[in-house]
Amino acid sequence: MGTPQFKEIRRAYGFDDISIAPGAVTVNPDQTNIEFTLGGHTFRIPIIASAMDAVVSPDTAVKLSQMGSLGVLNLDGLWTRYEDAAEILAELTAVSLDKVTPLFQKFYTEPIKDNLIAKRVQQIKRAGGVCAVSTTPQNTKRLAPAAVEAGADIVFVQSTVTTARHISKSYEGLVLNKFVQQIKVPVVVGNVVGYETTLELMGTGVQGILVGVGPGAACTTREVTGVGIPQVTATLDCAAARETFYKQTGRYVPIITDGGIRTGGDLCKTFASGADAAMIGTPFAQTFEAAGRGYNWGMAAPHPALPRGIRIKVGQKCSMEQLLYGPSAVTDGTQNLVGALRVGMGMIGAMNIKEMQQAELVYAPDIKTEGKTFQMAQK
Amino acid sequence: MGTPQFKEIRRAYGFDDISIAPGAVTVNPDQTNIEFTLGGHTFRIPIIASAMDAVVSPDTAVKLSQMGSLGVLNLDGLWTRYEDAAEILAELTAVSLDKVTPLFQKFYTEPIKDNLIAKRVQQIKRAGGVCAVSTTPQNTKRLAPAAVEAGADIVFVQSTVTTARHISKSYEGLVLNKFVQQIKVPVVVGNVVGYETTLELMGTGVQGILVGVGPGAACTTREVTGVGIPQVTATLDCAAARETFYKQTGRYVPIITDGGIRTGGDLCKTFASGADAAMIGTPFAQTFEAAGRGYNWGMAAPHPALPRGIRIKVGQKCSMEQLLYGPSAVTDGTQNLVGALRVGMGMIGAMNIKEMQQAELVYAPDIKTEGKTFQMAQK
Amino acid sequence: MGTPQFKEIRRAYGFDDISIAPGAVTVNPDQTNIEFTLGGHTFRIPIIASAMDAVVSPDTAVKLSQMGSLGVLNLDGLWTRYEDAAEILAELTAVSLDKVTPLFQKFYTEPIKDNLIAKRVQQIKRAGGVCAVSTTPQNTKRLAPAAVEAGADIVFVQSTVTTARHISKSYEGLVLNKFVQQIKVPVVVGNVVGYETTLELMGTGVQGILVGVGPGAACTTREVTGVGIPQVTATLDCAAARETFYKQTGRYVPIITDGGIRTGGDLCKTFASGADAAMIGTPFAQTFEAAGRGYNWGMAAPHPALPRGIRIKVGQKCSMEQLLYGPSAVTDGTQNLVGALRVGMGMIGAMNIKEMQQAELVYAPDIKTEGKTFQMAQK
Amino acid sequence: MGTPQFKEIRRAYGFDDISIAPGAVTVNPDQTNIEFTLGGHTFRIPIIASAMDAVVSPDTAVKLSQMGSLGVLNLDGLWTRYEDAAEILAELTAVSLDKVTPLFQKFYTEPIKDNLIAKRVQQIKRAGGVCAVSTTPQNTKRLAPAAVEAGADIVFVQSTVTTARHISKSYEGLVLNKFVQQIKVPVVVGNVVGYETTLELMGTGVQGILVGVGPGAACTTREVTGVGIPQVTATLDCAAARETFYKQTGRYVPIITDGGIRTGGDLCKTFASGADAAMIGTPFAQTFEAAGRGYNWGMAAPHPALPRGIRIKVGQKCSMEQLLYGPSAVTDGTQNLVGALRVGMGMIGAMNIKEMQQAELVYAPDIKTEGKTFQMAQK
Repeated sequence: MGTPQFKEIRRAYGFDDISIAPGAVTVNPDQTNIEFTLGGHTFRIPIIASAMDAVVSPDTAVKLSQMGSLGVLNLDGLWTRYEDAAEILAELTAVSLDKVTPLFQKFYTEPIKDNLIAKRVQQIKRAGGVCAVSTTPQNTKRLAPAAVEAGADIVFVQSTVTTARHISKSYEGLVLNKFVQQIKVPVVVGNVVGYETTLELMGTGVQGILVGVGPGAACTTREVTGVGIPQVTATLDCAAARETFYKQTGRYVPIITDGGIRTGGDLCKTFASGADAAMIGTPFAQTFEAAGRGYNWGMAAPHPALPRGIRIKVGQKCSMEQLLYGPSAVTDGTQNLVGALRVGMGMIGAMNIKEMQQAELVYAPDIKTEGKTFQMAQK
Repeated sequence: MGTPQFKEIRRAYGFDDISIAPGAVTVNPDQTNIEFTLGGHTFRIPIIASAMDAVVSPDTAVKLSQMGSLGVLNLDGLWTRYEDAAEILAELTAVSLDKVTPLFQKFYTEPIKDNLIAKRVQQIKRAGGVCAVSTTPQNTKRLAPAAVEAGADIVFVQSTVTTARHISKSYEGLVLNKFVQQIKVPVVVGNVVGYETTLELMGTGVQGILVGVGPGAACTTREVTGVGIPQVTATLDCAAARETFYKQTGRYVPIITDGGIRTGGDLCKTFASGADAAMIGTPFAQTFEAAGRGYNWGMAAPHPALPRGIRIKVGQKCSMEQLLYGPSAVTDGTQNLVGALRVGMGMIGAMNIKEMQQAELVYAPDIKTEGKTFQMAQK
Repeated sequence: MGTPQFKEIRRAYGFDDISIAPGAVTVNPDQTNIEFTLGGHTFRIPIIASAMDAVVSPDTAVKLSQMGSLGVLNLDGLWTRYEDAAEILAELTAVSLDKVTPLFQKFYTEPIKDNLIAKRVQQIKRAGGVCAVSTTPQNTKRLAPAAVEAGADIVFVQSTVTTARHISKSYEGLVLNKFVQQIKVPVVVGNVVGYETTLELMGTGVQGILVGVGPGAACTTREVTGVGIPQVTATLDCAAARETFYKQTGRYVPIITDGGIRTGGDLCKTFASGADAAMIGTPFAQTFEAAGRGYNWGMAAPHPALPRGIRIKVGQKCSMEQLLYGPSAVTDGTQNLVGALRVGMGMIGAMNIKEMQQAELVYAPDIKTEGKTFQMAQK
Repeated sequence: MGTPQFKEIRRAYGFDDISIAPGAVTVNPDQTNIEFTLGGHTFRIPIIASAMDAVVSPDTAVKLSQMGSLGVLNLDGLWTRYEDAAEILAELTAVSLDKVTPLFQKFYTEPIKDNLIAKRVQQIKRAGGVCAVSTTPQNTKRLAPAAVEAGADIVFVQSTVTTARHISKSYEGLVLNKFVQQIKVPVVVGNVVGYETTLELMGTGVQGILVGVGPGAACTTREVTGVGIPQVTATLDCAAARETFYKQTGRYVPIITDGGIRTGGDLCKTFASGADAAMIGTPFAQTFEAAGRGYNWGMAAPHPALPRGIRIKVGQKCSMEQLLYGPSAVTDGTQNLVGALRVGMGMIGAMNIKEMQQAELVYAPDIKTEGKTFQMAQK
């Protein structure tokens, strides 16, 4: 009854927990503006492909640029370790599952080469693409300058959890505000959740924030460590920080929700939760053009001492064009993501992403009820 | 802890989330009055059949009128495109599933003919039925006058989400208040959710509102776009608007909940949430008399460029008479909907639908618990 | 956002939603007092067997009395229609399932005979049992006096939903306060939910209230009509009324929770929710002594025009002695209900049922988690 | 609407209901300090092995000490009844399941011998281990002094629910404050839930509290008696009492969460809920070194009159070293618990357990969503 509380427990929401309320105005979908601006670069669509070896190669980065999107190349991956990375990828996707872990470990211990960094960046730039690269906080000071010198446009610094303050005695941590000042191009950092953490990181001068730590269900990070915030709440919190930071400084730092987005519905909910853009991995890994040829793996899979995760068969489902712009061959919302976003915005009455961020959300858990699905599915 | 909130998330409820509390008075079921009045027409029962080709034909519209209900004929469907629509329907339901989509696309691109509109309306009127017709906002200005001239009694204007304000540059939108003044018969619009939107729409002079956007679970609209409001909350919000509008103007505009109603329990909950009537699709499609002969499909299935949804086998379960008035051959509440409504009203102590709207609701998620079902099922 | 609310939706709880907090004192189970007093009769245990033909026969009523419990004989059932009711029951449980409904309808249309009422009552009384009988509001005025004249000690008046006020034009309803005054023995009515309804019914002079309308999951009443209140909330509400009534009048009217109780855990939760006694059906139907020989059915199953529910095979699991007093051959709490109640009271520190009613409840949904069950199950 | 409430129902949380928010600072995992001090003994890690015969033998107690952990030897088990307990255990794990209960009953009725108590304690002490022993309140006065005289360092007094006040007429209860004064070594009691109960028990002078009564899902205690508190809430409540007690007396009494911890995630959540240490059973029973050889059973299984629970096959999964310190051969968080704890603390920015107790928790039910697991699992 009168038990003193040791701490408050806040309700957190994931994509499947919520639904978006239609607005009081409707808009024709083809009139919506979904442009996204990051560090001075404006993209036609607010969708970014994850820095995974099975997702973004120099070729797909170029193709994504041509389609108005952005692909981020992983500087710690195979493309900067091997001249013939495509061949290595072919080998990794052809071998049987029980033999893949030692192969991962072998291929990912090959040193990263500065000349390959330069080569990959130039491949993208020469073909007219916007070149975004990603690295870890530990490798940033070494790899990022090489990429920028070769012409990279944007640098992503990514780890599972990133904060402005990291305590370590084994190595001197990356000092973000110094790095941001020294490097000539916009810096995006992640992954981040939490209002205070986001505010602090924005204060270092970064030009974008990746949102998402162990989101949603069945996340290994959450299972192993108990740590994680469902994506809707993570995005709402970071969006609140972005607004506060903007009011305090006049500087608008976009936030990019990263993780767990699989359908047009998830995508619409991401923006309605306050995101400026969405980073997507698996759906791109499932396209015909993806370097993973129907497989995907995380950056922890090749860990030499503690391999986490394995190569997953995700299948090859459609082209990148179809994934982004349709036409959709399915009715489950996994194709034509841009079309779904525009239709959703039309129903909500949002002319652009900033208006989409104002949409009303309701808590309405998406429990499948058999035998009740027909009529609605047909509408 | 002290995280500023980017936005509030309201709890929304669907049929399976709630239950109705019995009242302090009980009423003999045969003493309940369940009449429903729409635009001057009074119906013996507050149940309307959806404007789907597989559900309402001129023949079933007449039959529904005779049974005290109302069937709405789809002006954009097959009956206004083909003289021999029954034959076309027979073909559509006989073909194998993998060949049905091109056939849909072919049959639904045949032009709509004004003389067939007139013919269908007159078929219904001559047989003594109340004739309600439905069309989309885009086609309203062309098709509705033709139907009214032929004698149609009520016009439904229906799209996935309807608001009083629609922004488009490709075509001049339907201006509802003008249309309502020009057309001679009552106008019902939908589908709608939200207090403000309902108030605005009532202000245009319409005589009824269809409630429901992507309700409940596993809705394609919700999966693809993230947009949707569970039906109980949608109905509660629109009912609140109806009451406000009535207080402000003295005009009572009934609201009709449309979507997801499958059992007597759902029906009772619809009224207890504030509805004046319920629109029902699949249960009618499952009757022996339905034109779909055991199949159903939505209006998006025949889309020439982006077909959504397919022909679904819903089965033929009972007659329209049995569906509405029993006797029920099953114990799951899917037959004898009127009987179930009257029994429910009796337990709640509601003499009529207005009293039923005052019933107390509780949040009591309907999770099936195996092995605990017997004793209760037998009561 | 600022949407006016059409109505509040209160959270309601069932057995599986809650758990009981242990107390600050523990008591040796054998020191707990679980007596229950109803209309001047004191029973050693607060458990009553439901008035179902498959559960309570004159023989089992006697046996239950001997065990300190109470069995209620159904006056509208087979025992008052047939001299050789046991033979009829044997036939009903031997016939194949597809032939049982017409047989039900045939057997239950045989008229009820006053001499058989007298005979059954005297059978129980002569053997030294407490004789409780049950009938419906419609039949109360005819059947109850006959039973009382023959020596019945307590009369139960039971329907799905009972209120102090019933509106009907087809027959003059039972006026409870008159009936209570005229009949010489204590009257128990039900089933009831709701604070106001309970208060009003207590005001008629009844000496007990049966609590429960469509409780819990998968209830046919709830599925067909949407009406029902989960048992914990129903009991909490009626207990609040009992306390108010006691404060206002000085008269303590016990409440008996009826429906959905299957395990010792459910039973403990019933009392922790405020019940004075529990009525139990299926677990008694599963005893070797039950007249249903491993089958059970509700009073709606034999309905001549609208049979609801069928004969259900519930199995024969243990003796009445074992069900109530153990030893338990299983670890799932379905046997030794009295032992479980005493152990639970011991952990909670309740010396008697009134103290048990004060136990603290928490909302802790009972979702089975595979692979997490072992350690706890072993404690 | 205005129904008076009979009682409040508080929301309670289990491990699967919550998730931990990352902090605003991150820490290198190898810099975290996870020491735990109990009654003057400091352990390198805050993990204790349960006093179960299948988990802790004199040998494993020594090994656990060497690894910086603590194993508690059950004084009421086989090691103090049989000289050749290992042989008895071998027999118990080799017999077929249908014959195990009589064997349990036979072996566990063999009297406990004081000389064997002394022998077991000395086995542990001579090998350099910290010797903790456990007994029930009923046996404490007899068995605990014998163990302490032989050199035991810590005494655990354990029953399903323990309070400072126990009411019994059949035997004089253990008076804890007297016992604590008489016995020369620190006393830990449990199991306990609830703020008031914990405060009272701390007031008796005990040096540690075991937290947990019928936690989580599918617990037999909860199923049979309805009693139980999910572990997160139980830990939060006891932690609040610990803080209050510390403020009032200046004495810090650590709390040890016992029950339901299976993964690194559960372990992290335990500390984030306020625990000072965690007691773990099944995961230790699953190690190659466990005396149960892949089986486990609770102390109620050998009950002579009312055996509850049976011998469960839990499997042999890894070494104690691997369970605690890795490397993990799996990705589900069930191995390398210490590594998981340090990594979690790193993400949360906790330098030690006291800081970990300050972590922010969110309510985010861990419902598995198929098809959404890949991307996250790979991060």
